[in-house]
Amino acid sequence: MRKSRITKLKANIRPIIGLTLGDPEGIGPEIIQKGLAAYRPAVPVVIVGGPTCMPDLATIHIRSLDEVSSANIYKYDLSPTATAPEPSFAFLKCATEWALAGQIGAVVTAPISKAKWAKSGLPYRGHTDFLAWISGATQSAMLFYSSRLKVIPFTVHVPLREVFGHLDFRAVVRFLRFVDEDMRRLFGGSFRFLVSGLNPHAGEDGWLGHEEIDILRPAVEAVKSTVDIHGPFSPDVVFQKAQEDGRAVVVCWYHDQGLIPFKLLNALNGVNLTLGLPFIRTSPVHGTAFDIAGKGIADPGSWIDALRLAERLLSRSV
Amino acid sequence: MRKSRITKLKANIRPIIGLTLGDPEGIGPEIIQKGLAAYRPAVPVVIVGGPTCMPDLATIHIRSLDEVSSANIYKYDLSPTATAPEPSFAFLKCATEWALAGQIGAVVTAPISKAKWAKSGLPYRGHTDFLAWISGATQSAMLFYSSRLKVIPFTVHVPLREVFGHLDFRAVVRFLRFVDEDMRRLFGGSFRFLVSGLNPHAGEDGWLGHEEIDILRPAVEAVKSTVDIHGPFSPDVVFQKAQEDGRAVVVCWYHDQGLIPFKLLNALNGVNLTLGLPFIRTSPVHGTAFDIAGKGIADPGSWIDALRLAERLLSRSV
Repeated sequence: MRKSRITKLKANIRPIIGLTLGDPEGIGPEIIQKGLAAYRPAVPVVIVGGPTCMPDLATIHIRSLDEVSSANIYKYDLSPTATAPEPSFAFLKCATEWALAGQIGAVVTAPISKAKWAKSGLPYRGHTDFLAWISGATQSAMLFYSSRLKVIPFTVHVPLREVFGHLDFRAVVRFLRFVDEDMRRLFGGSFRFLVSGLNPHAGEDGWLGHEEIDILRPAVEAVKSTVDIHGPFSPDVVFQKAQEDGRAVVVCWYHDQGLIPFKLLNALNGVNLTLGLPFIRTSPVHGTAFDIAGKGIADPGSWIDALRLAERLLSRSV
Repeated sequence: MRKSRITKLKANIRPIIGLTLGDPEGIGPEIIQKGLAAYRPAVPVVIVGGPTCMPDLATIHIRSLDEVSSANIYKYDLSPTATAPEPSFAFLKCATEWALAGQIGAVVTAPISKAKWAKSGLPYRGHTDFLAWISGATQSAMLFYSSRLKVIPFTVHVPLREVFGHLDFRAVVRFLRFVDEDMRRLFGGSFRFLVSGLNPHAGEDGWLGHEEIDILRPAVEAVKSTVDIHGPFSPDVVFQKAQEDGRAVVVCWYHDQGLIPFKLLNALNGVNLTLGLPFIRTSPVHGTAFDIAGKGIADPGSWIDALRLAERLLSRSV
């Protein structure tokens, strides 16, 4: 079902990148402004925002995507009625609907506030939740991507103590097959997957935990005839192994297991790419950074990386 | 009680460093040999091993510590009877007894196999467990120390799912006070403690977990009148904050939260220093590395760092 849909979209999508503004009170508008001043993609980009956001960038205002013709910076403003009560969600919804209709091929999102979404009664824990739901994706995942390190956490925005409830042999096998297939689809090449353990020293033969013996090792065995996969390795060693190896991807089990090393190696860059969607979606890896918003000191590096990766993957798929 | 003991030992200890050989089948003998060839401390060192280990290093064989006189490399061999059934434990026990008696001031240990200890029926999960027990320490902790990053995990060699059972407001408060006091005692200066959250984004106001609200934040508040302490911070941000800041120490909650970033920044160096003991004890941060033992390719960097730190702290305390 999902496969045929992706094939259909591939044939018809327009090589345009939608750029959502994110939370207008966060650093989104600033990094987009700085980012597009520093890097101009070879395809048209359309900023989806509101009329009061980002006055300091020369853009071509449009009322319809039909007005997009060449590699310029376009701006599409939603009305105040459309953006209430949570503008960052309205921007995302608009861009996503375009992408699902094939009117644009990729979406680069700017940070939103999960707390604000929750306060507005939105039932999604973040971008990825919403995107998976609206796309009807049966499976999705976050790939944290940089030249220095690539990591995919199995669980993301869940409390640490809930991780154990998600770890199940069948779910892990399905996940491993899925990330391998979807990365081949998006990147057009195969990767080498290094699986992290869950426990200290990957459980040290059961002495420090049993999930490796009961779930992770059997799951790796179950898929290794078709997937280039290795492990489980000690969590405090596997990221060193993968570092600087362009074809290596670490599969890990909870948010900070992947994000601590990823952010340590990528202080101001790196991309979050969503796997499992029928269009390309990337984002910077930082949050709204309300504490520095409006001060002019936000670094656009991670957002520029997100834009470049979206452009690169889009050029493969159209 | 513990305080008076430490004071007493301080007045009488000899400035000698004991070097345990670790597991004879691991890389311990090799890194000691290479390490002492590359770095010679300004105080006497005594290797505690067996007669068949490490023939390729010029040492002065002794039968008693009374024979130690100057900054040379001495070797003390335990008999085969004394080392059965687990030599690495016998070496450690001997050096520890010397240290507790004030006959030596510091012990640098080489890696042991926890699995072998368990098979021999030893009830200790590792060095630190045994050292805390034999010293009668009411509290102990592992400080992972390097110039780039310093981290102290609250729990260490426990399965990840058991971490939650250890997290308790009183235990955390006691731990925070203890690490501050003990680091002042050992280093003679004060440190700035950055506390990590437990959950993704430090729980994001309870949306991604409650331990920060229920335990960690109140514990930080409870000690901050006497301890230079900050947080809890998002786990994927706090290590960046502490990196390259010589006075910053990250307090985190489980093994890999601290060891993943520490090992990523210190591939071949860094020291494990035990807090809470009445003598100085350091070790390299790697394991026995049975897979490369005997091949001559083991790197002595971490062990040399351990020796240098022991020497530096010893020079402060005698």
